[in-house]
Amino acid sequence: MFPLLLLFLATLVATSQAQGDHIAHQIHLLRPQSGARKDDVPGLSCVSWRLAVETNNMVGWKTVPKECENYVGHYMLGDQYRKDSAVVTNEAYLYAKSLKLGGKGKDVWVFDIDETSLSNLPYYAKHGFGVEQFNHTSSNEWVNTVKAPALPESLKLYKKLLSLGIKVVFLTGRTNDQRTVTTTNLKNAGYHSWEKLILKGSSYSGKTAVVYKSTERRKLERNGYRVVGNIGDQWSDLLGGNSGNRMFKLPDPLYYIS
Amino acid sequence: MFPLLLLFLATLVATSQAQGDHIAHQIHLLRPQSGARKDDVPGLSCVSWRLAVETNNMVGWKTVPKECENYVGHYMLGDQYRKDSAVVTNEAYLYAKSLKLGGKGKDVWVFDIDETSLSNLPYYAKHGFGVEQFNHTSSNEWVNTVKAPALPESLKLYKKLLSLGIKVVFLTGRTNDQRTVTTTNLKNAGYHSWEKLILKGSSYSGKTAVVYKSTERRKLERNGYRVVGNIGDQWSDLLGGNSGNRMFKLPDPLYYIS
Repeated sequence: MFPLLLLFLATLVATSQAQGDHIAHQIHLLRPQSGARKDDVPGLSCVSWRLAVETNNMVGWKTVPKECENYVGHYMLGDQYRKDSAVVTNEAYLYAKSLKLGGKGKDVWVFDIDETSLSNLPYYAKHGFGVEQFNHTSSNEWVNTVKAPALPESLKLYKKLLSLGIKVVFLTGRTNDQRTVTTTNLKNAGYHSWEKLILKGSSYSGKTAVVYKSTERRKLERNGYRVVGNIGDQWSDLLGGNSGNRMFKLPDPLYYIS
Repeated sequence: MFPLLLLFLATLVATSQAQGDHIAHQIHLLRPQSGARKDDVPGLSCVSWRLAVETNNMVGWKTVPKECENYVGHYMLGDQYRKDSAVVTNEAYLYAKSLKLGGKGKDVWVFDIDETSLSNLPYYAKHGFGVEQFNHTSSNEWVNTVKAPALPESLKLYKKLLSLGIKVVFLTGRTNDQRTVTTTNLKNAGYHSWEKLILKGSSYSGKTAVVYKSTERRKLERNGYRVVGNIGDQWSDLLGGNSGNRMFKLPDPLYYIS
């Protein structure tokens, strides 16, 4: 039944494309904006919005546009999020495999935690997939349950990196008072060992994630570590200097951290 | 007829989504790979491939995967490429409007040329949308026709920036011997004035675009210019230092320049 439906849809799409229309692209628009093509300010395309977010063209946004709640929800719960993540972690592994390691046990890979190592999707699924304003209280309650599952593709990458002899450093925006729950949750999710788990200290209070994370990466390098790779879901995990020999951006259309 | 078809498709998609399947996402897969979900190395999803390209997770690739020729072709010729570009240039304009300019006429915005200011899509449409290996001879022949059209959204941004009092610097990987044809083509396409047109000099021969472009941006800043913005279709237009106060990445799944 399902393959037939897919074939049928594909045929319709192919037909419309042959006519010069591109339904395949428009299907993602849950609320197509008529006349958007010729507007200077385009009608909101959730597909374009997400691409702009992933490429850091859209910065400093506070919430997902209301019109995109369903789109983001379907994306996060569906296959595409997993597939998009898998392509990234697969590239990361191919890169890691190609490395000539220093051999002194000082080669590290920096992993962000939320939406990189652990997934808060169960929480966000109950809170509008980023449409609701971020709520510290309910978010902390969720963190304290220590039930966040691993992002499956990231956990696979983590295991493969360890087997290559690369050590893992977790560098997270979670604060020092969350060390115990974070340790427990990481272990619950399958991350059993790490070189360091760096949480945000009070000295960084009020500083951006870019400043905090690049400073901590610089410290790592000053302490003799070689950051061979760096993976996160936010550009603030990756930019700002001492970014590592190569950086990998996992998808995250749920929130933006500067 | 067309709106009905769209409605019909949307209904089918909504139905399938309610069933937990996500045809909307899978429709882009021109050749769905069975069993890909559980593979360590995922079957090629052209959607995921393109996202990985746009986010610089996939680097140094030489050609578009053959399986993605139709996908990339439909994307480039369809609405989505235009919409994706429009969201980027609209963000760029909103940012530019918010700026407090220096007032000394030294505020500049760096524009890349190919696939940013001018489009080579007429050429690539005849050469497999990036599937064919890059051919210097035929590519130069195309450049020499001076027929590359403007990317409409970039031309709009260019005009708006000029009206805000921001000057434009074109910084291109085209070489110095292409100055005349490039000037002619820019003017043909509607770009009538600029502060500088910087082409790649022979001293950069063998150097990467990242090195060439960041060095030239540093020279601009040393000469008193303030690079308030920077727009390009390649990450090598944007990374490498002196990137400008903000950078904007236009879509380009056709080729990769290091």
